[in-house]
Amino acid sequence: MKDHLRIGILGLGVVGSGTIQVLAAQRAKIKEQTGMNVSIVKALIRPAEDKKQFADEHGIELTSELADIVEDATLDVVIELIGKVHPAKEFIAQALKNGKHVVTANKDLIAQHGVELVEIAKENNVSLFYEASVAGGIPILRTLTTNYLADEITNIRGIVNGTTNYMLTKMLENGTSYEEALAQAQALGFAESDPTNDVDGIDAAYKMVILTQFAYGMDVALSDLEIQGIRGLSDKDVLQAQKFGYEIKLIGESVKADETISVSVGPALVPKTHPLASIKNEFNGVFINSTGIDQSMFYGPGAGSLPTATSVISDVAAIAKNISLGIDAPQFNEYRRPLQLTAPEANYAKYYFAVTTSADFTADALTALLANEKVQINELAQEIGETNRFMVITESINRLQLAAVEAAIAKQGTLERRMRVMEA
Amino acid sequence: MKDHLRIGILGLGVVGSGTIQVLAAQRAKIKEQTGMNVSIVKALIRPAEDKKQFADEHGIELTSELADIVEDATLDVVIELIGKVHPAKEFIAQALKNGKHVVTANKDLIAQHGVELVEIAKENNVSLFYEASVAGGIPILRTLTTNYLADEITNIRGIVNGTTNYMLTKMLENGTSYEEALAQAQALGFAESDPTNDVDGIDAAYKMVILTQFAYGMDVALSDLEIQGIRGLSDKDVLQAQKFGYEIKLIGESVKADETISVSVGPALVPKTHPLASIKNEFNGVFINSTGIDQSMFYGPGAGSLPTATSVISDVAAIAKNISLGIDAPQFNEYRRPLQLTAPEANYAKYYFAVTTSADFTADALTALLANEKVQINELAQEIGETNRFMVITESINRLQLAAVEAAIAKQGTLERRMRVMEA
Repeated sequence: MKDHLRIGILGLGVVGSGTIQVLAAQRAKIKEQTGMNVSIVKALIRPAEDKKQFADEHGIELTSELADIVEDATLDVVIELIGKVHPAKEFIAQALKNGKHVVTANKDLIAQHGVELVEIAKENNVSLFYEASVAGGIPILRTLTTNYLADEITNIRGIVNGTTNYMLTKMLENGTSYEEALAQAQALGFAESDPTNDVDGIDAAYKMVILTQFAYGMDVALSDLEIQGIRGLSDKDVLQAQKFGYEIKLIGESVKADETISVSVGPALVPKTHPLASIKNEFNGVFINSTGIDQSMFYGPGAGSLPTATSVISDVAAIAKNISLGIDAPQFNEYRRPLQLTAPEANYAKYYFAVTTSADFTADALTALLANEKVQINELAQEIGETNRFMVITESINRLQLAAVEAAIAKQGTLERRMRVMEA
Repeated sequence: MKDHLRIGILGLGVVGSGTIQVLAAQRAKIKEQTGMNVSIVKALIRPAEDKKQFADEHGIELTSELADIVEDATLDVVIELIGKVHPAKEFIAQALKNGKHVVTANKDLIAQHGVELVEIAKENNVSLFYEASVAGGIPILRTLTTNYLADEITNIRGIVNGTTNYMLTKMLENGTSYEEALAQAQALGFAESDPTNDVDGIDAAYKMVILTQFAYGMDVALSDLEIQGIRGLSDKDVLQAQKFGYEIKLIGESVKADETISVSVGPALVPKTHPLASIKNEFNGVFINSTGIDQSMFYGPGAGSLPTATSVISDVAAIAKNISLGIDAPQFNEYRRPLQLTAPEANYAKYYFAVTTSADFTADALTALLANEKVQINELAQEIGETNRFMVITESINRLQLAAVEAAIAKQGTLERRMRVMEA
């Protein structure tokens, strides 16, 4: 009976080193509960990297040749932590084809090519696990496959980008401007020097693609999502949202209506009393509505070396357990449904609009403008100056009404910001 | 290959009926993902109960003879939902001995006799699962066995009693008195007519016993816990805690220090900024500190028919999956360590004291009294009247110092309330 799991790791950066540390700390517990000795024995690094001392300490052989890992018949598992889509995709595909189980934290890759890679894993009778790809340390994906197997999710909403949540927390609590908040996030190492993927909602969108696969079994492409970021968010909107009783959060939302879904990412007004409003700073949270459990939320670190590494090693432990139980390699998520997107006329939400107009355009005129599109305003605030700035919350409207309202507003002023408003 | 799982259910009360409804709704999804047809075919009810119409609708045979279920060789699984310790314990033992997997939501039973029942399950090569026994709909137990397998928990704290959390929320937000809050909880059906187990912390203690087994592998008896309830909690303390920056919550806490643990239940001061402070009304939350993930929290309904039933059916689905994978019956929690309790002198916490004294006893005298025991006061408030009421928060002290402080206070006045103070 096999009792030793030998692992090769691709990448010895921050998460890679963390993974080796977490395994060293938890090896005895994993052995005890899975019956398997688990060791990381080889690591792929770039030729120029100097990792000799660290590798020697942990008994790891270094290489900068991929073949030394993916073609090593003594290795059972490959952990991929080099990130980005290429060449990670090709590396993982080779490992799977060579009969190795793969664990990855690579959300960009899984969101875009996960379905294809899972097929390769199946053909080769190995597992592809990626718990760390969504919300770093939060154990959400495996939980969706077990405890929600007997439930029907109707809405899964997440604060799944730590950088932007940190920025929004600072803007709300300290009145920091968008630019300052971004600079702080960069100084703390949360945001990359090019923060595009964070502030434009792309990173959150990748995670929502993966969450949607687990929640509804549906494979949605990035182009099926409506994606807005928080770039240039005005502190005026942060302040006004607060006066209306809301906090602004970058929310990824995947909603089911009948058998269709709609997935979006964007800054949204979250009622202050909603549990998602309590997710502060760089933390992540995933909030689920379902017919059985009703309301649940999972909170934790969205990134960071040790939390991510712990999720990676929990995947490794799951593989160890499967092997020791003699189970044929299961896939991470066996839930599959054909994708059906919600039609625009069935896709309802409340919206917040910030509109600037000339000084002679009145609140009554704005109300009439929306009424003309059969849209009622629930909340209205006005800032008077050389131009007027109106901030309104509408009743729940569908996407056709939304388009009509936006077109009507564009004729009378400038639509500075439009955000969804979450129900309490 | 076996492809049909036949179930007998003990009890058709609120959760029992909910369980049958949840299975009816999720049967197709469970079949798809586990390969097994799952049916509840028999139910044990009391002779006087009239459940004929409901049973007929769901194709369930009724009986009031236990033997009809536990001795029926065609049944694979027994779901126990009659509650209380006896005769549920004997019923479950018989089912296990007859080779049936058992799923239960019975926290009193599992906390007190779980270890013994797990042994019987092992001997008979069947599984005993009880996800619903802690925090109803929150998927916490299975998550502890999977995603925390590669982590080391250092502190697990829970708001695990919905009744008292509802009462404390009303006392805090509406200034409701303890008596009124209890009456409201009873009117809403959260609290039993005899609310002892809720308000005296017993129910929370059972759940902490189970959480401790999963978090640390240690089997702690109820008598090893320090248990305080919220009975008669004064709104003066609720108000003063708030002024100090805290909310009072009934917190179950299981802390590891070196290789020892201490487990307690009691009203505690939770910093307003801590995620546990955001758990309102009848909801539950479990907050975990660990060396890998660092901080995580699980939020959801602690009780209720459908949430509890969903957890029960998720256990049934896990059994179905194991059978279809041909796995020998695994136990729910394979983590075992010898119990080692933290010594009093190593058991540290900050404390809140409410003390009444005669009117001539001053704040300086109280400070001197504690200083005499080498305990410093971090916060002090005083209410002057015919008697003085002091409300203080100490620095972190150990249990020997705590005993000394309490003895010293008793000589000068009355200790009305003592509560732990959580660190931010």
